[in-house]
Amino acid sequence: MKSIDLNADIGEGFGDYQIADDAALMPLITSANVACGFHAGDAAIMAKTVALAKQHHVDLGAHVGFPDLMGFGRRRMQIEHDTLAHYVTYQLGALSAFAHAARYPLTHMSFHGALGNMVSEDEALADVLLRAVKTFDPNMIISTMAGNAVDRVARRLGLRVVCVFLADRAYESDGLLVSRAKPGAVIHDTEQVKARVRRLLTEGTIESIDGDTLTLDVSSILVHGDTPEAIEMVKTLRATIEETGLRIAPVSEQIRQQSWEQTAL
Amino acid sequence: MKSIDLNADIGEGFGDYQIADDAALMPLITSANVACGFHAGDAAIMAKTVALAKQHHVDLGAHVGFPDLMGFGRRRMQIEHDTLAHYVTYQLGALSAFAHAARYPLTHMSFHGALGNMVSEDEALADVLLRAVKTFDPNMIISTMAGNAVDRVARRLGLRVVCVFLADRAYESDGLLVSRAKPGAVIHDTEQVKARVRRLLTEGTIESIDGDTLTLDVSSILVHGDTPEAIEMVKTLRATIEETGLRIAPVSEQIRQQSWEQTAL
Amino acid sequence: MKSIDLNADIGEGFGDYQIADDAALMPLITSANVACGFHAGDAAIMAKTVALAKQHHVDLGAHVGFPDLMGFGRRRMQIEHDTLAHYVTYQLGALSAFAHAARYPLTHMSFHGALGNMVSEDEALADVLLRAVKTFDPNMIISTMAGNAVDRVARRLGLRVVCVFLADRAYESDGLLVSRAKPGAVIHDTEQVKARVRRLLTEGTIESIDGDTLTLDVSSILVHGDTPEAIEMVKTLRATIEETGLRIAPVSEQIRQQSWEQTAL
Amino acid sequence: MKSIDLNADIGEGFGDYQIADDAALMPLITSANVACGFHAGDAAIMAKTVALAKQHHVDLGAHVGFPDLMGFGRRRMQIEHDTLAHYVTYQLGALSAFAHAARYPLTHMSFHGALGNMVSEDEALADVLLRAVKTFDPNMIISTMAGNAVDRVARRLGLRVVCVFLADRAYESDGLLVSRAKPGAVIHDTEQVKARVRRLLTEGTIESIDGDTLTLDVSSILVHGDTPEAIEMVKTLRATIEETGLRIAPVSEQIRQQSWEQTAL
Repeated sequence: MKSIDLNADIGEGFGDYQIADDAALMPLITSANVACGFHAGDAAIMAKTVALAKQHHVDLGAHVGFPDLMGFGRRRMQIEHDTLAHYVTYQLGALSAFAHAARYPLTHMSFHGALGNMVSEDEALADVLLRAVKTFDPNMIISTMAGNAVDRVARRLGLRVVCVFLADRAYESDGLLVSRAKPGAVIHDTEQVKARVRRLLTEGTIESIDGDTLTLDVSSILVHGDTPEAIEMVKTLRATIEETGLRIAPVSEQIRQQSWEQTAL
Repeated sequence: MKSIDLNADIGEGFGDYQIADDAALMPLITSANVACGFHAGDAAIMAKTVALAKQHHVDLGAHVGFPDLMGFGRRRMQIEHDTLAHYVTYQLGALSAFAHAARYPLTHMSFHGALGNMVSEDEALADVLLRAVKTFDPNMIISTMAGNAVDRVARRLGLRVVCVFLADRAYESDGLLVSRAKPGAVIHDTEQVKARVRRLLTEGTIESIDGDTLTLDVSSILVHGDTPEAIEMVKTLRATIEETGLRIAPVSEQIRQQSWEQTAL
Repeated sequence: MKSIDLNADIGEGFGDYQIADDAALMPLITSANVACGFHAGDAAIMAKTVALAKQHHVDLGAHVGFPDLMGFGRRRMQIEHDTLAHYVTYQLGALSAFAHAARYPLTHMSFHGALGNMVSEDEALADVLLRAVKTFDPNMIISTMAGNAVDRVARRLGLRVVCVFLADRAYESDGLLVSRAKPGAVIHDTEQVKARVRRLLTEGTIESIDGDTLTLDVSSILVHGDTPEAIEMVKTLRATIEETGLRIAPVSEQIRQQSWEQTAL
Repeated sequence: MKSIDLNADIGEGFGDYQIADDAALMPLITSANVACGFHAGDAAIMAKTVALAKQHHVDLGAHVGFPDLMGFGRRRMQIEHDTLAHYVTYQLGALSAFAHAARYPLTHMSFHGALGNMVSEDEALADVLLRAVKTFDPNMIISTMAGNAVDRVARRLGLRVVCVFLADRAYESDGLLVSRAKPGAVIHDTEQVKARVRRLLTEGTIESIDGDTLTLDVSSILVHGDTPEAIEMVKTLRATIEETGLRIAPVSEQIRQQSWEQTAL
């Protein structure tokens, strides 16, 4: 039976600040992208988040961003590639210390916010940053969107990639996200979100914003937990997935499964 | 032949800021305490410092401090013990990522500035923080001053300890440093510093500020590199040590030697 | 008719982070203590908060704290008095720029969190910091608790003082707050809070935690807005005050009234 | 007698960090651009720098930058214009508090580093930021390079502008600086720098990197103080200016003189 991963950005508070209800969200997802202290997150929150992930058997990933807490990592910064690579290494190391302290593995990483946008457009940048990831851990799974620079470069470097679907975002016909600046970029209607997920999981396609049929090879769905409504949406998505007969399971399990199947052949 | 370690605080810049001439200092020392981005240091400086340490075969250690760049970690902060333990884990993880990326070991750690003062006075705090260190790496060597809370607790926890001598600081008769607030706390005269080091290395004693003879079991001498004069002082100390017939070697080598001797018995 | 001020800590978010529902709270209060970018708050939030205060004719005050966003200014820091005075000046200047840009006056200031605790216990510190406030603006109203070091020193320096009552906190018989570490420090029962406020406003006294009758000269009540329940509590307090026949009005108006009465004599 | 201003970026340290020898530089210049705590500078340094400027009768200006201490404000950040305007207001307010505390006027402002580059290229951004400056103080003098967006927009808004010459930088034929990425961008030869300044002050022209004659209307020369050699260069420049018979005087004095002449007509 094929499985699908549900992942969310977690641990995005700082000090006394909170963004989402992590304790409510964690039992509902199968992989967590944890902020590492640059765009959000601090040491105490990271420790708590890792413990929560371990408790709920949720895959632990590093969500790596710009050093811009005031902008939540959502503002582009023109930083030299080598320096950015060191920022990636620093964040991976910091989170992995908490994973190690909890004796729980760090399975994956993804790029947050503006850094995520920049690296998904720029192969040269993706190459420098993903080499830093590979040097840190060649088994690290890269979580990104299918077909962007991160996806292409990661595969070229021999890194394992998981492609994520954003259930509440419209897609252009070339597979990229519709910019938030455009009308229709975010899909607010729950029924529509459910229908898209159902079609994607059963037929492997979605409809682009221009009405084209788009084939997406997706093994993870990104969900949000920053409002009570968002938590409800995750529950709805879980029910929708289970209706299609798919199992909800972390990406690392899918990859182990893949490896097993390849070995078995 | 017995050996002595020369250690220094290194990588204490931030962004464009520099404190010491690390490139001049590194070839003269045998172990480096590297700032980890809290009281000083940033990812790019950490990467550079680790490379420099590897190049000169200098032992790499984490210099862990308060999150207070504006105060250079020299101002006491009343932070809950558990939270502080997470700060320790975070910093160890961040530096160890660069060590791992350079395929060079992280051998030791010490506490910086006000955190160092607080933890050396408070066994309960030392216990919480050193347990975090041990969880991270039970082989981590703890660098501190003989007889303080860190020394006592580290040994109790089964951690290996290296005791450091501050060659340019006066000592009280109980083995503690004379407070900088008191006259005579810092010894500025080079000849006096040399004489103290010579006596310590040959007789194992120094004279306290009150004229008492103090026995110190020391395997490392702390040096500074923040001025051209400081660099000269390190060279002078090296010559002084070599005159006594001791070898200048990193602490990790002394500990490997110790283990070998214990096994040999 | 005598009046009473309702004040709250406002603008305590940072970047995308929020603590309280400032937009809901602002219409219910008469003076706001605005975070200035050290323990909380940033430039964009300060601009927005000042505009909101002006819109609702709420007195604008600076809430000055430690440079410790990660600890929300609630952790004591041992910083030299002169340096702290510069931190006070910096924060007053930053907020006053937004007040000036909005052509709306900055009327008062108070010390936040751990800095507030430290300065209320230490006359030497209070003297240095309040001199900095006086140099910045000799007409600045100091908001604090009756009888502490800030109150005493501010009056000695000729600064105007407003004494604040914490409606949901128990008091010791000497007029100090019961430490949060002790049971009974925080009063959660709404009816009890209402009864205390009613007695204070009509008789000028409260009952201390030990059952003594305590006379408090109070012209402002501190309220919270960080939960929906807190907002309800503020509404309840407003109703309670109005039942006593007092008018709810900002402190600056009380002080203008005082000055007028003194002149009239 | 015409006069020329010598200005420098000052107060660029942070905590224990220093960049330049401000105490050596201040007596040699006539106007100072003081970092305000975003890209560099902190409250204690600002207080000290303002005192030093007052002592040497040096014009005090705000050097406003990005909130990026790790990058020293030299990395472009894509921040919404309105938010950036609030950052400008915040920094102006913070520095003006120290100026006010010292009873010494804040005369001018300029944009630092990457923010300076962005705003000098983008009239829409310049408009938003300079309106914030004008709201703060309509008499604020804007220090920038002739002909860029800041210069044009500031004049359009009725703000007073001072145009700065960078003596050690090559110019393109259109009056813009040669990018540091190009060879020849920085002029290291002292004799060449002196000859350029002499020609500019006597003939009002310089030679562009392509050999064209460029007319520059300049009333201030930017100097650096970050090395002992830089301090020597400032002394050399002072001698060169005095040889041409011009007086070295702050910009504010030139502008008062201008106003007086206009009034006298």
